[in-house]
Amino acid sequence: MAIVLGDNQYGKAEVRVVRVVRDTARHEITDLNVSSQLRGDLAASHLVGDNGHVVATDTQKNTVYAFAKKYGVTSPEDFLITLGRHFVDAFEWISGGRWAAEQYSWQRILVGGVEHDHSFVREGQETRTAVVELDGEDITVVAGLTDLVVLKTTGSEFHGFPRDIYTTLAETNERILATKVSARWRYLGAAHDYNGLYTEIRARLLDVFAETHSLALQQTLYAMGETILREFGAVAEIKFSLPNRHHFLVDLAPFGLENPNEVFYAADRPYGLIEATVLRDDVPPAERVWAGIPGFC
Amino acid sequence: MAIVLGDNQYGKAEVRVVRVVRDTARHEITDLNVSSQLRGDLAASHLVGDNGHVVATDTQKNTVYAFAKKYGVTSPEDFLITLGRHFVDAFEWISGGRWAAEQYSWQRILVGGVEHDHSFVREGQETRTAVVELDGEDITVVAGLTDLVVLKTTGSEFHGFPRDIYTTLAETNERILATKVSARWRYLGAAHDYNGLYTEIRARLLDVFAETHSLALQQTLYAMGETILREFGAVAEIKFSLPNRHHFLVDLAPFGLENPNEVFYAADRPYGLIEATVLRDDVPPAERVWAGIPGFC
Amino acid sequence: MAIVLGDNQYGKAEVRVVRVVRDTARHEITDLNVSSQLRGDLAASHLVGDNGHVVATDTQKNTVYAFAKKYGVTSPEDFLITLGRHFVDAFEWISGGRWAAEQYSWQRILVGGVEHDHSFVREGQETRTAVVELDGEDITVVAGLTDLVVLKTTGSEFHGFPRDIYTTLAETNERILATKVSARWRYLGAAHDYNGLYTEIRARLLDVFAETHSLALQQTLYAMGETILREFGAVAEIKFSLPNRHHFLVDLAPFGLENPNEVFYAADRPYGLIEATVLRDDVPPAERVWAGIPGFC
Amino acid sequence: MAIVLGDNQYGKAEVRVVRVVRDTARHEITDLNVSSQLRGDLAASHLVGDNGHVVATDTQKNTVYAFAKKYGVTSPEDFLITLGRHFVDAFEWISGGRWAAEQYSWQRILVGGVEHDHSFVREGQETRTAVVELDGEDITVVAGLTDLVVLKTTGSEFHGFPRDIYTTLAETNERILATKVSARWRYLGAAHDYNGLYTEIRARLLDVFAETHSLALQQTLYAMGETILREFGAVAEIKFSLPNRHHFLVDLAPFGLENPNEVFYAADRPYGLIEATVLRDDVPPAERVWAGIPGFC
Repeated sequence: MAIVLGDNQYGKAEVRVVRVVRDTARHEITDLNVSSQLRGDLAASHLVGDNGHVVATDTQKNTVYAFAKKYGVTSPEDFLITLGRHFVDAFEWISGGRWAAEQYSWQRILVGGVEHDHSFVREGQETRTAVVELDGEDITVVAGLTDLVVLKTTGSEFHGFPRDIYTTLAETNERILATKVSARWRYLGAAHDYNGLYTEIRARLLDVFAETHSLALQQTLYAMGETILREFGAVAEIKFSLPNRHHFLVDLAPFGLENPNEVFYAADRPYGLIEATVLRDDVPPAERVWAGIPGFC
Repeated sequence: MAIVLGDNQYGKAEVRVVRVVRDTARHEITDLNVSSQLRGDLAASHLVGDNGHVVATDTQKNTVYAFAKKYGVTSPEDFLITLGRHFVDAFEWISGGRWAAEQYSWQRILVGGVEHDHSFVREGQETRTAVVELDGEDITVVAGLTDLVVLKTTGSEFHGFPRDIYTTLAETNERILATKVSARWRYLGAAHDYNGLYTEIRARLLDVFAETHSLALQQTLYAMGETILREFGAVAEIKFSLPNRHHFLVDLAPFGLENPNEVFYAADRPYGLIEATVLRDDVPPAERVWAGIPGFC
Repeated sequence: MAIVLGDNQYGKAEVRVVRVVRDTARHEITDLNVSSQLRGDLAASHLVGDNGHVVATDTQKNTVYAFAKKYGVTSPEDFLITLGRHFVDAFEWISGGRWAAEQYSWQRILVGGVEHDHSFVREGQETRTAVVELDGEDITVVAGLTDLVVLKTTGSEFHGFPRDIYTTLAETNERILATKVSARWRYLGAAHDYNGLYTEIRARLLDVFAETHSLALQQTLYAMGETILREFGAVAEIKFSLPNRHHFLVDLAPFGLENPNEVFYAADRPYGLIEATVLRDDVPPAERVWAGIPGFC
Repeated sequence: MAIVLGDNQYGKAEVRVVRVVRDTARHEITDLNVSSQLRGDLAASHLVGDNGHVVATDTQKNTVYAFAKKYGVTSPEDFLITLGRHFVDAFEWISGGRWAAEQYSWQRILVGGVEHDHSFVREGQETRTAVVELDGEDITVVAGLTDLVVLKTTGSEFHGFPRDIYTTLAETNERILATKVSARWRYLGAAHDYNGLYTEIRARLLDVFAETHSLALQQTLYAMGETILREFGAVAEIKFSLPNRHHFLVDLAPFGLENPNEVFYAADRPYGLIEATVLRDDVPPAERVWAGIPGFC
């Protein structure tokens, strides 16, 4: 038995870069939070503090900023692919790595109903995410979103569950269903219209949430995933982490009031947590990329 | 010299209440975070633990839920006024208090371009705030918003400031201006169309931010405040707390690249912080209501 | 009626400065988060964007770092006083301002029971706070702490409160009492052993919390405040903001189990909130300094 | 090609349970945040909303509270093992799952230097973590800690790294090294003195951080891991996620001041991020348990 160095990676996390395109008076902005992590022949740094192979995390940060200028940012996925290929190509001992981004969206401010040329308001519905993993020539792209909070005031039931000595929950045919959607989907291949796909997939997730009569949050989850895989051939698999944000009906009977599903207490903790993968049964797995993404089973 | 009990108040904070109106198939929701605090003859509880005057904070919470059913929630301000008057009327030793709410907004999910009847997505641009203070018959209403993040990519300068030995900042005729607007405005009187006013004031704040060519964030602040007071006779004063969210131009020269205001580093800390009040010179002050609102000078 | 500029201040917030004293092999560190805000004749910047009086917030930041070197940091209060006096003295149009700091504490790592010379672990019990306000020659110093979380498993009751139609809470002679102490105390004068006083006052707050048999959190609050004023002649007044962090006894009866105050659910929201001032009846008020400190009535 | 349900789990997250032992006047408390997630034959709920196999998340929550009474909480690991075995044994379609806890530590308040019997102050240095995974009869136990913030003011260098066109970082023989340790270690087998091991491993991590003269944070990481594996035969592998919390030396030369490593700016973002596993080369992998733990490569 020996003690050895196992999987490892290192880099610069949360490089905040705002890229402005100002070729015309109507400016565009892209707002990213980029992390870069390298893998390869890095044992010497760990074992004896020899940094001859350690591309400084500061260098990685500088590269992010330089590339934002040189190549622009058309989509976070394309930007990360360009970054990753650079490091693998430029340093022979770097065999791969992981590049990730969050993208924050901005809307143009409407002045008198007209979109302003250079003034924006941050839109808060969700954060777009992207992860690109390189392993030599292999490339894996996972897109996604977090913090998309949705709620429906009817069309949700929960009953038929098993009862044991610790079961006190009543069955219900009418409840609020609310969740904060975190979804990540892996693409087949690496050449896509990432922005177009993101917009369409996001819209379909909302559609299916709205239109599914839900007997369980699990059912809603699967319906969302199955729809995305059926409609988007570029998607190999999709994972969800869905907290069930409980809205409890308040008992107003002590105050002489009925409460026909009108007044609810929105609880913080604990919360249900439903996680699942929906996938095509003929695609190879991609375990390592998923291992680095928090919050998915 | 004696040691005495000074100003005090107590209550229940952050009561999360979601009110659904479901009289038709097209449901409406109001989502509030309500705090209730009472003032009055409460010395005995502090001095000797006699709770004969302590309306339990649990009772205050129950009242919030019961009133959401009994009276509905037309606006946070009206809801808080109703709550406050109840406590002052119901308990003779309660002379007043402070009631506050945050309101989270939800949009209908669009399915095929059509607003869904009962499915919603949380809109994240800002949080609406309301504070109502009662002191016997006197009532003070302060509306506001927080976390409205705005940015303009041009139309902002900063120069002409004094220089001393500690000054290293360069003058600039072109910078990104970004801030997270917190604004609170006090109304004259307590009978208003609070929802309508909120919508209009919020829109005008965005307009002025967009259209002001800014020589200082102070100037933008004042322009926003002056516009609100000029256009809305119901507003007595408005306070702003505006962090200057610095976006620093990245020096790309070491990499052989120019950076004509295209690539920026969005910094976290430290940040500038600009705070000011704009008011009508003939309105009486309302110091106590402001003392309880964090983050305003 | 005219629209005018009211109270205003501006500066740099959250300047993170770590000061190391390394005159011997046994290093010392002081870790501060400093905010500086100036007041004075600043109308021109607001009204017309003339920055001739605007000492740049970047300059304020630089001054913080330079002073950390020049004068060291013996206590946050003394450091802020030195900063504040500099700005008032150096710029004739600056009449005063507000300087604030949070201090994070570090303990030496114990290696084999011996304190290490230059390695530290962050201690997390509470954050020390300091605020210094200058108005011309007048100086006000407010010390304090936040996030000191305490809990007692017995010695707390709550009963005798009034009951109305909305009251459902049961009376209790035995409950967990838990709170996160935020306390701020104002000193008489500005020449004190601030570090010594802080250590002693913090210890006494804990003592009184532990030893007071509590009939109401209000009573515990007052006992803490009264003790500090009685024992520390330098303190003019003390304010508390005490959330009542509810620990609800779980009903285990459905599972055939008794629960004699052994298993509790620690709730997040809502929470009780008890706020009060304890003061000497012969000290002049200091409203403006308190207005800028969030979370105190 | 078919679309199928892949890996999935569900349960109740963040059940906040405080367990008091009060058999004598000297009370003990254990403060946990427990999550329970079940795996097994759960397809019907996803595919058709049939909840016949869905042990309600509310039931899982109730079980946590009931078990805290029935079995007490000797260590988080033992408590989670008991919980997990119950679900696997009680429901034939449940094949395994994942149970996790955070533990918050409390110290007794010292009154006059004496530990109080029933009054406590929350200690904030780190949060202890535990994860137990069951897969039929197989059991995996991962202990750990998060948010242990450490810093050394000397004894850290960084040089010898490769330079390319994007490299601007200077080499240094003297820098502050600071990180927030997240560490997770997997035990061999499931019968251990978990509390004793936790205390010893935590102490050794601090020792090694303090005593390692660091040429790279990677080197410090490996030294910590290698020490734990060498000294604790019960540990199969240990993973670290170490942000490099940069403390930049402030350039005071423009102000006529030297700065011999005395005044630093503590930066927020971006930060370095160093992640690695140290393991015995003869232990079988445990990929699934690690996949569910955020923030480790």
